[in-house]
Amino acid sequence: MSMYRLPETLGRLVAALSRLPGIGPRSAERLGLHLVQADPGGVEQLARVLVEARRAVRNCEVCGALTEQSPCALCGDPARDAALLCVVERATDILSLEKSGAFRGRYHVLGGRLSPVNGVGPEDLRVAELGRRLAGGEVREVVLALGTDVEGDATAHYLAERFGSSGGVRVTRLAAGLPAGSGLDYADDLTLSRALEGRRPVV
Amino acid sequence: MSMYRLPETLGRLVAALSRLPGIGPRSAERLGLHLVQADPGGVEQLARVLVEARRAVRNCEVCGALTEQSPCALCGDPARDAALLCVVERATDILSLEKSGAFRGRYHVLGGRLSPVNGVGPEDLRVAELGRRLAGGEVREVVLALGTDVEGDATAHYLAERFGSSGGVRVTRLAAGLPAGSGLDYADDLTLSRALEGRRPVV
Repeated sequence: MSMYRLPETLGRLVAALSRLPGIGPRSAERLGLHLVQADPGGVEQLARVLVEARRAVRNCEVCGALTEQSPCALCGDPARDAALLCVVERATDILSLEKSGAFRGRYHVLGGRLSPVNGVGPEDLRVAELGRRLAGGEVREVVLALGTDVEGDATAHYLAERFGSSGGVRVTRLAAGLPAGSGLDYADDLTLSRALEGRRPVV
Repeated sequence: MSMYRLPETLGRLVAALSRLPGIGPRSAERLGLHLVQADPGGVEQLARVLVEARRAVRNCEVCGALTEQSPCALCGDPARDAALLCVVERATDILSLEKSGAFRGRYHVLGGRLSPVNGVGPEDLRVAELGRRLAGGEVREVVLALGTDVEGDATAHYLAERFGSSGGVRVTRLAAGLPAGSGLDYADDLTLSRALEGRRPVV
């Protein structure tokens, strides 16, 4: 066997990098080799920004979004419609919805979805916090923007039952159907049957 | 436009990550979002190992390999054949050759190859250092393990002329030909013509 291997600190760097999501062993090695030969100032700056970002970014205590100040800019914005509350699974879902520009209300991050199989119950999610926000009385409609799989469905039904049946708020869910710009030939059976169920008059 | 964007420190982290090789804007965002929500201790450790590796790893003053101590383990190993010197372009090429297990001599990292178009001349590479090592008199053969493109060829000819013509050392080059385990149908014209030129008796 060869005596030559990666220097020990480089080996540890590669190991740490390969634990990041989407970084396989080959790209971790390539990244590590790049970093130990890169401009030292740039590397120290990357390390600094990494630690700073982790320290500065937290979850908004009201909605759960990623923010440096709590409540976040969205929760503090009087131009957003306080009567519309969109429930998402993860803080990053807010980014997707905001990029679409189609929603002008506020958000509530659930922190996941119900999954009895994985032992995730309502008490593991920000469901009680949602209840407290709704008790404030301002919200008229809760829009559930959850995934369209079995757990998403179960979570939607649970929330609709818990908060919608009392009558104070309307609980709706994002439409399921054909993705924009796509034809029938690319749609799977379930998407097609949901698109059919949800069909609407053209005018 | 939406008021909601990435928190400022997270935005800077994503920008820094997207400057790394092989990390596009989408994976930089995904990585950044993961990191600001990851275990804080783990993130600080990644930052620490990053800085430590960059500080500890340098180039061996003899051969130019990546190492934490100079001279490196390879240069200090009496079991390696000091009469055989393999010239590579980059420090990481040593890893590839050592993985193959086929070379038992020592190395010399050139730091690139001659490229008049890009203004890279012999004085920009570790050519003078190579001359000093050869002047020591121990080396009998210099094996050029350079890329097989035009610049690799030019570099090989330059080095052969400069160090081989004096007669003291033999300058050889890695064989060009068909890659192992591959058939004629996958070989391009140049590979095939080089494989033909370099044909050898079967026995």
